[in-house]
Amino acid sequence: MKVLVINSGSSSLKYQLYDMTDESVLAKGLVERIGMDSSILNHKPTGKEEVTEVSEILEHNTAIRKVLDMLTDPEHGVIESIGEIQAVGHRVVHGGEAFNGSVLVTGDVKSEIRRLFDLAPLHNPPAVMGITAAEKNMPGVPQVVAFDTAFHQTMEEKVYLYPIPKVLYKKHHVRRYGAHGTSHEYVSKTAAEYLDRPIEDLKIITCHIGNGGSLTAVKGGKSYDTSMGLTPLEGLMMGTRSGDLDPAVVTFVMNKEELSISEVNSMLNKHSGLLAISGSSSDMRDITDGMEAGEPNETLAFEMYEYRLRKYIGSYAAAMDGVDVIVFTAGIGENSAIVREKVCQNLTYLGVEIDKELNKVRSGDPRRISTPNSKVEVLVIPTNEELVIARDTHRIVLENK
Amino acid sequence: MKVLVINSGSSSLKYQLYDMTDESVLAKGLVERIGMDSSILNHKPTGKEEVTEVSEILEHNTAIRKVLDMLTDPEHGVIESIGEIQAVGHRVVHGGEAFNGSVLVTGDVKSEIRRLFDLAPLHNPPAVMGITAAEKNMPGVPQVVAFDTAFHQTMEEKVYLYPIPKVLYKKHHVRRYGAHGTSHEYVSKTAAEYLDRPIEDLKIITCHIGNGGSLTAVKGGKSYDTSMGLTPLEGLMMGTRSGDLDPAVVTFVMNKEELSISEVNSMLNKHSGLLAISGSSSDMRDITDGMEAGEPNETLAFEMYEYRLRKYIGSYAAAMDGVDVIVFTAGIGENSAIVREKVCQNLTYLGVEIDKELNKVRSGDPRRISTPNSKVEVLVIPTNEELVIARDTHRIVLENK
Repeated sequence: MKVLVINSGSSSLKYQLYDMTDESVLAKGLVERIGMDSSILNHKPTGKEEVTEVSEILEHNTAIRKVLDMLTDPEHGVIESIGEIQAVGHRVVHGGEAFNGSVLVTGDVKSEIRRLFDLAPLHNPPAVMGITAAEKNMPGVPQVVAFDTAFHQTMEEKVYLYPIPKVLYKKHHVRRYGAHGTSHEYVSKTAAEYLDRPIEDLKIITCHIGNGGSLTAVKGGKSYDTSMGLTPLEGLMMGTRSGDLDPAVVTFVMNKEELSISEVNSMLNKHSGLLAISGSSSDMRDITDGMEAGEPNETLAFEMYEYRLRKYIGSYAAAMDGVDVIVFTAGIGENSAIVREKVCQNLTYLGVEIDKELNKVRSGDPRRISTPNSKVEVLVIPTNEELVIARDTHRIVLENK
Repeated sequence: MKVLVINSGSSSLKYQLYDMTDESVLAKGLVERIGMDSSILNHKPTGKEEVTEVSEILEHNTAIRKVLDMLTDPEHGVIESIGEIQAVGHRVVHGGEAFNGSVLVTGDVKSEIRRLFDLAPLHNPPAVMGITAAEKNMPGVPQVVAFDTAFHQTMEEKVYLYPIPKVLYKKHHVRRYGAHGTSHEYVSKTAAEYLDRPIEDLKIITCHIGNGGSLTAVKGGKSYDTSMGLTPLEGLMMGTRSGDLDPAVVTFVMNKEELSISEVNSMLNKHSGLLAISGSSSDMRDITDGMEAGEPNETLAFEMYEYRLRKYIGSYAAAMDGVDVIVFTAGIGENSAIVREKVCQNLTYLGVEIDKELNKVRSGDPRRISTPNSKVEVLVIPTNEELVIARDTHRIVLENK
């Protein structure tokens, strides 16, 4: 079965075409600047030359059509006809409490995703645009949605509720939902496989750290706690997001600077984190370069990032009464040896010991960076959210045949 | 030297008179409802009968006068004349970055405390009223101020800064300050003395948990990190305060419920925490009773409280790369055996092991509740903030003679 995986943003659309017989990627690409002046389609067919096309793409419907044209193009394409695509899988950020796993798209499912616009105003609307566009361009082809929140639906009430008036949960669904669920699930399963140990017996802390970032305490294969909350603002310090704060800072700053709700949200989401402290960049590579060059602001940004990440690892060890495995993944987790080294260096009380040379090796494969003596296995596992969505789509379509 | 310790709230004034030759308490008491209909003065002279007087007390000046009258009263008093009081020590909540210890009151000191009204609008103004009233009623008597924030001034920049635009620190002094410093300092020192080990070698986590609550990571005798932040809202779940939240919850709720800044602050400070989840009480004794009677809301409130407290202990163990001693203090910490038991029960990964019987013993003395096998010493140490203020006052007055 050939499965097309789509990830729709407000002005972008990422895609990946899988052949599920061997889980190989036939092609992948990205449409950017949808609805803007000159949209760009970057297409990477496996075994063929990459191609970039600039054109007018006003909405997601046209974007999907362009992608399908490209996939079936005699020169750049990888399939003969659209009919070869037997299923489409979509990434949806927010599934609220309605979805604890991927599902086949129905009218009800779409309505429910729309009902959740409130909780993910930036992310869920483009997802619905992507689904509708795919339905139009590939009528009759089954569609599946995978939710970033679904994996975290196993959290207990004591973990997901905030200590605020309960009416806010009942009326407005204010609670912890988490994010990056597909990634946390994938890397925790892969970790268990890599170690050849039953996941049911393991306490794993998965660190999905990229420009955004979240940690999950995975206990017996289930999400027990996660650092993102009602929104992706909570938790770790990130590229441009503050992460955890005294909640009173929000109103103090609104008051002092006469900021509106949207202005303070914009400040905390787009102008905080590494960017605010370094004053130069939200990218960990720049921060690390600056630190190595002895720049004080970049050094401080790095130290705050490392310290806050390490404290979260400590809190999740306490949450599960122990930790067997720590997994690093996503942009920073997979590529920044120095972040991994500095975090692990101060976790000796847990018995963490990493091999500095192994930690420096670059590879696209799952790998161990802890020493044989380490009481905690420390792994680097490249994440693959698209593959999880493709597998879910494949499985669900077969089940519903 | 006889030292009067004063703790002024907006409508209250607590006092304690010490004889510093043996650190004994000659009398203590509380004036409540200052500025309200009928004010109450409750006076407890050591070795004499307790007395309660209802009268009109419009401001702190009159309150102090009444207290001095009571202290010198032929029947209820404990001293012959006001002249016997050789120094006064005041508790001040917020010392900002200006004070890293107690100081003698001067005009400059008072101006600085006034400059900090912004950061502690509910607490610093009555403190100044108390100081001014004491100066008026005891002219020439040296006065000392002890700050709740002073102990935490040893925190490093990477710990006290928030990952938000730096201009907010420079312009509005937005950073972590912490609270309960006098208590954290006292119980950590007492812990080292009790264990007969040099505090310089110890990593201590002090849990000051009462109706409000904060945790401190005390490394080598210095505050390394603490859970309260810019304000006392951050950190643990408390009686009526939420503690940590997704910062976006603040604006989400403001938006949904059309709340003003002061309304949302009031919600998070006065109507959250144990009270919000139990729906019945902010008092841990009621919560525990409810849980033992099988009430689901009280059980959930307890579980959330315990879970959030435990995660903080875990995060501070990571912050210091280990923990040698955990200290419980203040109302809940000193009296709730079940809170201590449940928290420690899930810290076996740190090697924590408590003796359930020792844990149940009630006493006003410092005591160990961990077993000889425990890798972490777990202690219960009754706090005594007034004694610390009296000692500081005594020392500073002698130094300035």
